[in-house]
Amino acid sequence: MPKYFLYQHTQLKDYIIAYFNFLGVPRTDSETIAEVLLEADLRGVSSHGIIRLNTYYGNRIVAGDIKAITNVTNVHETATTLLLDGGNGMGHVAGKHAMQKCIEKAGTTGLGMVTVRNSNHYGIAGYYAMMAIPYDMIGISYTNSLPLVAPTYGRTAILGTNPIAVAVPAGSQRPYVLDMATSIVPIGRVTVYDKAGQPIPEGWGINTEGNVTTSPADVLHGGALMPLGGIDLMRGYKGYGLAMMVDIFSGILSGSAYANLVARWEEGEGAKVGHFFMAVDINAFRPAQAFKQDMDDYIQLLKNAPKAAGQERIYIPGEKEDENYARNISNGIPLLEEVVASLQRDCAAKGFPFTPEPVGIIED
Amino acid sequence: MPKYFLYQHTQLKDYIIAYFNFLGVPRTDSETIAEVLLEADLRGVSSHGIIRLNTYYGNRIVAGDIKAITNVTNVHETATTLLLDGGNGMGHVAGKHAMQKCIEKAGTTGLGMVTVRNSNHYGIAGYYAMMAIPYDMIGISYTNSLPLVAPTYGRTAILGTNPIAVAVPAGSQRPYVLDMATSIVPIGRVTVYDKAGQPIPEGWGINTEGNVTTSPADVLHGGALMPLGGIDLMRGYKGYGLAMMVDIFSGILSGSAYANLVARWEEGEGAKVGHFFMAVDINAFRPAQAFKQDMDDYIQLLKNAPKAAGQERIYIPGEKEDENYARNISNGIPLLEEVVASLQRDCAAKGFPFTPEPVGIIED
Repeated sequence: MPKYFLYQHTQLKDYIIAYFNFLGVPRTDSETIAEVLLEADLRGVSSHGIIRLNTYYGNRIVAGDIKAITNVTNVHETATTLLLDGGNGMGHVAGKHAMQKCIEKAGTTGLGMVTVRNSNHYGIAGYYAMMAIPYDMIGISYTNSLPLVAPTYGRTAILGTNPIAVAVPAGSQRPYVLDMATSIVPIGRVTVYDKAGQPIPEGWGINTEGNVTTSPADVLHGGALMPLGGIDLMRGYKGYGLAMMVDIFSGILSGSAYANLVARWEEGEGAKVGHFFMAVDINAFRPAQAFKQDMDDYIQLLKNAPKAAGQERIYIPGEKEDENYARNISNGIPLLEEVVASLQRDCAAKGFPFTPEPVGIIED
Repeated sequence: MPKYFLYQHTQLKDYIIAYFNFLGVPRTDSETIAEVLLEADLRGVSSHGIIRLNTYYGNRIVAGDIKAITNVTNVHETATTLLLDGGNGMGHVAGKHAMQKCIEKAGTTGLGMVTVRNSNHYGIAGYYAMMAIPYDMIGISYTNSLPLVAPTYGRTAILGTNPIAVAVPAGSQRPYVLDMATSIVPIGRVTVYDKAGQPIPEGWGINTEGNVTTSPADVLHGGALMPLGGIDLMRGYKGYGLAMMVDIFSGILSGSAYANLVARWEEGEGAKVGHFFMAVDINAFRPAQAFKQDMDDYIQLLKNAPKAAGQERIYIPGEKEDENYARNISNGIPLLEEVVASLQRDCAAKGFPFTPEPVGIIED
């Protein structure tokens, strides 16, 4: 039975800020990174939270693969669009800046679109999309990522799990927040089955021959994840097409790396991750108040629809994550015992011990 | 063995133009409709082509459910955005006009976004997205549609098959043209299995209880299609989330109908279909020439990737359709014997007999 330690989010946040500050990241940037990472843990997307503190970020800063000081520069700008260079710094910093520029531009012209080249892993895409909500705007963000997914009829990992995030404000209802990888599952899910010695469901991944396998080890060693949809019969080529779309908007429209050229870390050039951001001012089309009223009606219509046998609720994208958020704010963020152990080990190794103390323990 | 009659596309086009003209549609609008319908047949997307001439369009014009004269009006306009009212006319006419406005706006400001309310079925979404390609722009179109898809954990059809189309120019390679329903398959595919008395693959649809069924009749009679991804284990909630996204941009951002309020044809109000269009000027980010060179490299990288056992090609979205187009332009458009028979019957019933003569016959 896995054991979780519960941590107050404020305590984790203070620690993360201090951690990045210790590694040479400016204070304000450290705050941004902590905010994005903890948003993931609070929303229950723990795969993109503090668990990555060392592996995705700290280790790379120490190794010089990611720059501690994120120097974001304008490459080309118009009233509605902006191409940024992330300076091989922290993706969260470039990402937040980019989305702020989108919102600013959309506030002036109705639409804002920003792409970022030469960046790194930016955490959950949903964070940036959600930034638009308080402005009565629709927010969108995509990013490409290291290759893990095979194209339909391929047998090697060429595309990232390339997420799509779209956030839309509602009135009295929760906002709609879609934040989805374009693969069926992330690679971390396959790792969980591998560690547990259990077969994965048929369709999640393929082996080195390109055949569907239920062996997690086959997927992890030379195989690949399948795009949303899975096999051809189930129209996996649509998930493949969506993964390409994300790559085009994030990697190619920004002039960054794409496909399996992402995250090679060659010639000290960094991962060359590309991001995409957009904001749409609802008032440019119709009064936001009327739009949000329709969103409320729409959400209620879906939630009140007849349920399948054995089901009690129909969920709106982002609803479960919102519920996780409320619970984790009040009860604390659950971190697996092994995750805490690795944080303690890896942070101490950097000379900045993991000091937060748990406020509780749960076994699940 | 199904028998197909082959028709010259020019002959079909002339007929369709005359047909709509006969029904009171102005000449230029009839040309637009013919162009969009035949683009579907030429690209091999026959479900959205001339097969729908009477059922989706002609019958409804005759019944007064769709207006023969499409009076598109501006509801709200800014330099980058435009909300149009389709006047319950032909969706193709409103759609082409809307996409032209997107391209115009993107030419001036870098981005153009147009939504349309109070419209009708507009054919293939890909047609509108592809209009952007010659301008070195990325084109996007979504539309909502009559309810056929159940939300995850639901058991009734609440959402349309709500397609996503994205078209991106390349240099020497074919453009990327994604044009996908957000359901696994369209309802027509289930009908084909039903007529053939064959079970459908597990996961395409559900019965009235909301359970996965292999009976096409169960899906057609009170059941529903499943969103891309299928069951929860395969992450069908992502397809459901995408279907909602399309509905929000098409139906709600335009102030049209949404979910199962689409295509009720109540109180003589029309189907109230909503569309969404966007154009992104590539030059607003980086020189289109460099972008298209990267697209060529990207496409070749994917096509040259190692193939799965038993597979010889990796396809790019739109590639098969482009090949169909070339073949159908030269050999003629194949129409199923039954389709020709129903065209002959339904067109004659309107007093405008289906006169095109086949140029060949194939059995397949």
